[in-house]
Formats: sequence, C-alpha cells, structure tokens
Amino acid sequence: MMEQQSALTRVPGFRAVGVTCGLKTSGQPDLALIWAEHPCTAAAVFTTNAFKAAPVLYDRALLERTSTLRAVVINAGNANAVTGDQGLRDAEQMARWAESACGLPPDSAFVMSTGVIGHQMPMDNVEQGIRAAGKALFTDAGAQGEQAVQAIMTTDLVPKESFRQVDIDGQTISIGAMAKGSGMIHPHMGTMLAVIVTDAAFAADALKIALQQTVSRTFNRVTVDGDTSTNDTVVILASGTAGNISIGKGSPRFDAFVTAVTEVCTDLAKAIARDGEGATKLVEITVTGAATDIEAEQAAKTVATSPLVKTALFGNDPNWGRILAAIGRGGVQINLAGVLLKLGDFQLVASGEPLPFDAAAVSRWLAERAEVRVGVDLGVGQAQATVWTCDFSYKYVEINAEYHT
Amino acid sequence: MMEQQSALTRVPGFRAVGVTCGLKTSGQPDLALIWAEHPCTAAAVFTTNAFKAAPVLYDRALLERTSTLRAVVINAGNANAVTGDQGLRDAEQMARWAESACGLPPDSAFVMSTGVIGHQMPMDNVEQGIRAAGKALFTDAGAQGEQAVQAIMTTDLVPKESFRQVDIDGQTISIGAMAKGSGMIHPHMGTMLAVIVTDAAFAADALKIALQQTVSRTFNRVTVDGDTSTNDTVVILASGTAGNISIGKGSPRFDAFVTAVTEVCTDLAKAIARDGEGATKLVEITVTGAATDIEAEQAAKTVATSPLVKTALFGNDPNWGRILAAIGRGGVQINLAGVLLKLGDFQLVASGEPLPFDAAAVSRWLAERAEVRVGVDLGVGQAQATVWTCDFSYKYVEINAEYHT
Repeated sequence: MMEQQSALTRVPGFRAVGVTCGLKTSGQPDLALIWAEHPCTAAAVFTTNAFKAAPVLYDRALLERTSTLRAVVINAGNANAVTGDQGLRDAEQMARWAESACGLPPDSAFVMSTGVIGHQMPMDNVEQGIRAAGKALFTDAGAQGEQAVQAIMTTDLVPKESFRQVDIDGQTISIGAMAKGSGMIHPHMGTMLAVIVTDAAFAADALKIALQQTVSRTFNRVTVDGDTSTNDTVVILASGTAGNISIGKGSPRFDAFVTAVTEVCTDLAKAIARDGEGATKLVEITVTGAATDIEAEQAAKTVATSPLVKTALFGNDPNWGRILAAIGRGGVQINLAGVLLKLGDFQLVASGEPLPFDAAAVSRWLAERAEVRVGVDLGVGQAQATVWTCDFSYKYVEINAEYHT
Repeated sequence: MMEQQSALTRVPGFRAVGVTCGLKTSGQPDLALIWAEHPCTAAAVFTTNAFKAAPVLYDRALLERTSTLRAVVINAGNANAVTGDQGLRDAEQMARWAESACGLPPDSAFVMSTGVIGHQMPMDNVEQGIRAAGKALFTDAGAQGEQAVQAIMTTDLVPKESFRQVDIDGQTISIGAMAKGSGMIHPHMGTMLAVIVTDAAFAADALKIALQQTVSRTFNRVTVDGDTSTNDTVVILASGTAGNISIGKGSPRFDAFVTAVTEVCTDLAKAIARDGEGATKLVEITVTGAATDIEAEQAAKTVATSPLVKTALFGNDPNWGRILAAIGRGGVQINLAGVLLKLGDFQLVASGEPLPFDAAAVSRWLAERAEVRVGVDLGVGQAQATVWTCDFSYKYVEINAEYHT
C-alpha cells in the first residue's frame, strides 16, 4: 500500500489532495492542498526574477512574520504574476481560504501558483477548489495524496516525486517531495514549484541553510531553456515528529540530513530536465578541473543552455566542437592545452586536441540513449559541478509556438 | 554597372574575387581574396571565445607587428579551430600563399576561416584556391567582386553587403562591407566574419577606436542563438586614396565616419539576424529607460536570447509575459511600477500592469510581419540600446540537428 501513496504522504503526519476547480482547460486536477498534523518549522527559497509573482511576494513576507507553517495551497493554470495589487490581495485570500478549510489560524498556509502570466485569478473557482480540497483532506484521498502531484503539473508529461529515509540519532527520518516544471526552467533559487516535507525536528535557521545548500546543488543546476520563471519557489516543512534531537547548524546530523534531502532534490531536478518541454534525452553535464565551484557551474550551465549543443544532441551528433565553443564563451579560466572532453565513455578531446573517433558509432550510441553524460575537464584546478538539462527538439518549438496566452 | 558590383569593389582601389576549391561539399564558391591597390591602415576586433581559431591567433599577432595590410584571404567550409599547432602553421601558410598570389611582401595579408570546428584544413585545396583567386583578381571578375561574398557564406541563405558614401572635408568617402553569419551568432567582438573597406585616410589608433565603437553598437548587438563563435572577426582596411585629411580621434570627421560605418554595419547586423538559421522574422528589441547603456543592452540581449520569447514570436503569439519574465531575470534595475511594453505600435503593458488588447488582432498583425519591433521601457533612467535577433522555428532545430560534423 505504501508504494501507491505519494511521496509527501509517506512522511508520517502529512496529508495531501488534488482537486479540479476549472483552472486548467484540460479538466485535469489543478489545485493541491497539503496539510501537516503538527506545526512545522519552514523555510523557502524564491525566484530572483525581478517580476516576482504575487504568491512569491506574499510568502516572502509571511516567512518574515513566522517560521511555522501547517499547510501549502498550490494552483496550476494561472501564475498570478504581473497582476498588480489585485494579485496580491488574491494570494492573501487563497491563504485565508486554505487556513479556514484546514481549521488553522491565519499565517499558517503557504501559497504557490503556476500557469499563464498576466491574468487575474478566477477567484470563484479557486474558492470552490480550496473548499473541496479541505473536505477531501480528511478522507482516504488525503492520506494517499496521489492527486496532489497531478494538480501542480502544467506542460509536465510526468508527475515528479521523490522519497528517502535516513537514520539520524537512531531515529528514522522520512523526506518526501514533489515538484513541477517543464518549461521556463533555469532556476536561480528554486525551480518553478517544489514542496518538501519531513518529520525531522529542525532549528529554523538550520533548516533555511539546509534548504539553501540543497537547492544550490540541485534545482539551481537544472535548465531547460535558460528562462527563469516569475514563480519559482521551493518550500520545506519539518514537523519534528520523528523524535530526533532538533537538527542545528554544523552538526553531523545536519550533514546527514542535507545529504538525504540533496538526493531527493537531485531526483526531482533530473526528473524536470528529463521532462523538459520536447525533450528526448536527459543530459548530465559535469565540468571538472575548474578553478572554483562557481566557474565549474558557470561553464556547465553555458553548455547546458547552448541551443547548438542541445540541437546536436537531439540529432545524435557527437559535435564536441559546439561543446568546446560553449565552454570557451563561458568566461571561465581554461588551460587550453589540458582540456579533456568525454561523451559517455567516449573520449573525444585530450590535451586540448581532437582525438580520432568513429563518429558514426558514437552517433548510433547517442541515438540509443535516454540519458547522456557530457564531461569536460578544464585542466585548471580541482573544482567541479554537475548540471542537468535536456536536448532541444522540434517538439520544444511546437509546444512554445502553439501555446498561446 | 555600379549597381552590379559588390559593396567592396564599389570602393575605389579595391578588388575582390571568390573561387571554388572544394572546401564546401555543395560545390559553391568557398575561398575569397580581397586586394587593395594601395597600402591600407587596418584594425580588427576578434572573438572573446577562449577557444580562438588559428586564423584569429595569427591575425592578432599580425596586427601587433603591423597596422598596414594589402589583402584579406577568407575560406568557408573549415573553421581551422581547435586544430592545434598544425592549424596555426596552416593559417600562416594561407597568409604566405595569399601574399605570393598578389605579389605582396609577408605580413600584408589577413586570414579568416569559417566552417566546421576540429578538422585540419585541406591545404592542397586551399593552395589551389588561392592561386586561382590570385589570377582572377586582375580580371573583370576581380573588379566586380560578386563571387567574394558568395564564397564566405555557410548556412547563410542570402549574401550580406552594404555600401555608403559620406562627405568628409569636401571629399567623398566610400565605405563598402560584407559579412557572413547565420548560426553560432552571439558576437562579443565581431560577428563571425566581416570585412569593411574604405578609401578614407585614417590614423591607425583612430581607426581602431572607430571600429570598436561601431562594432559595439552593431555586430555586438545581434544574436541568433546565444552561441559565440570561435572565429568571429571584423576587419577594416582604409586605403587613404580619397584625399581627405587623415582622420584622427575626437574630430568632427571622426564622428562623421563612425556614423557612416555604423550605418553600414547596422545593415549587415540586421541582415545576419534576418538570415538567422531558420528565421521567419527579424526582431528588433529596443530597451529604453535603463539606468545605464550596459543595463539597456543586457536587458535587450536577455529578451533576444530567450527561447520562449523567440518561439512565441515564431508562433505569432503576443506573449508579453515571456518578454517581461526575460527582462526580469536580466539582472538590471527596473522600476516595476513604471514598466512599459510595446509590440510594434501595440501598447501591451503600462505602469507595470497589463493593458486590455485584442490578442487575435495582434497575432494576425504578427503573422503578416517580416520585421517585428519590441519596445520595453524600464522606467528608471535615460539609457537605451537596440539589439537584433530572429525568431526560433522548427527549421532552426532541423538545420542544427541534421548538420553533422
């Protein structure tokens, strides 16, 4: 039975539902409500886009007033972004309705939205959806939570969830998370939307740092199209019911938790890249031998956002020249005579010069892969970073040329 | 008769030819040779890509030895990039052959290459091509120069040339230029290849500054795919035969020349964007109201490289939300309550909030346009910048997925 539950509801003390309230034209579930049995220490990271959506502005202010949450309400179909003062009032109203539906006091609920930009929220639908979700929460559906992850999908083809357990102080800590995202993916602080819940006990400041460390190496290292959304948000709720000693900064238990939650978020980050709009391949780009971590990430992201590299991979073309050209424009320190480049296990460049290889064989190998690893060593230092992206296909153009506002 | 000449050979004292020597599999002309009757003051700007092609390294060293040139040899079909020491020797050999073919001493010829990366130059073909070009230079073909611009094209669908005359000190100064470029276009110092010739007399230091000023506002403001090439080079040759007083820095004649050569290079920059791989529309993005010129350019380039904006324009979708989302991630100062956005003459956003508009009518208008202007005012300061790009179509993916190394 456990296997059929959602990743969120596998964490003791959390319930989640998804309902349909007419925000998606497809008639699919479009509103999710997550509820915690106990008050949770919470932390979040948000988009750095200057045009922050109304729920992002609401949540940021909320977490300045409190670091304890009991619920998260999320809608798809409308981003509530570039919607002015009315949008802000609507985000706040969604929080009030969610709190009321769960029998909670004000400032207990976090709000997230995703969908089209620049349209006012159809608040009648939202109100009806939140009421229905509140009722469903305390049924079997709320215990299973399968519809919640469906409700946050937009152009996503597959739901994205991950679950891990880790032993801390002899207690089993559970971590469950879900995310959505397929286009406008180049997060800088969070990727579109993700919710992480855990039963670990946590000091608020330590939870914030744990989340920041995790996001910087997972969601902030995935890109589909280089476009950062107005709504990117990742939130973590820690209920403390696992019975562990509260996790503070700089302890072995902090490191153990960060390792586990990083695994969870890496699963989701890779799932987002694999489900990138129009993607046929997950592409994992690892840059080693960089002068600094920042340069390693910058070089890997330059490759990951190169349309020429991404179309070559779609065409199963082992075009290492485009990969090096991208590395070369990335503004990082390179030892030209020490550069190595690998595609999977094929070494294509060594000591900065091309090696002979069977292009047809590598092309056939590429054609058979759903996941491709690209490795570049800059020959300078010891720093490294891995970034995930996808290839760039006709379908990406179709999705984004034919999706009208 | 003048109208049939190439832009380069309309400048008195310059000859140009293109020949076929088997570097392009298409059998089209693939090697160009340009010759100046008189020694020319020369300046050039080059790619900032760390992987600079061999001819870029050769030319950069050449212009440290001399600022006087008499010839330019250019091949398409092979970029001579990431080709190691052999590539450097080949670039130098091309210069020697070109000088010999034109009866010039060493260090008179500039070398440019474009095409695939990572393959050694087929030097037998190149030698034969340069010899044939040398012979053709002093025939009618050399005087007309029509084949030269054909010879530097790769995925370009149309040749790109521009010609202007400007009166300086009562003398008519002619400026002719040609360029190539369609993919891997996001220049930072030059765009792929451009050659500008003029009969103006120029001080060497002033010519360098004039070229830098011009390139920063023309070729450095065009992008097709965000990918900066390994071979970007722009060179200018000034023969001084027009009889004007030698143009020095900071004079009215310097400004007059820069204005004229900026017009010429703007023509070519727009032609490159219009002929971007798979493009159906030229897109001109003007950001006004920025805090600084650099921020205006940065914001405009962020829009110009957004795959979501570019696919929306291909789909004739007036998706201003994607444009604002790109502006918002651009890292520039924005007065959110003062933002304006226009698509052509349609005002879609004012005071940071969406205006009602007839989306179907704007979409029909977009569908009829070969050129689209996007205007965004950031509401902060007085600075502005214009950047040129193109839309992003199925054809772009086809060209780059099916073009194999």
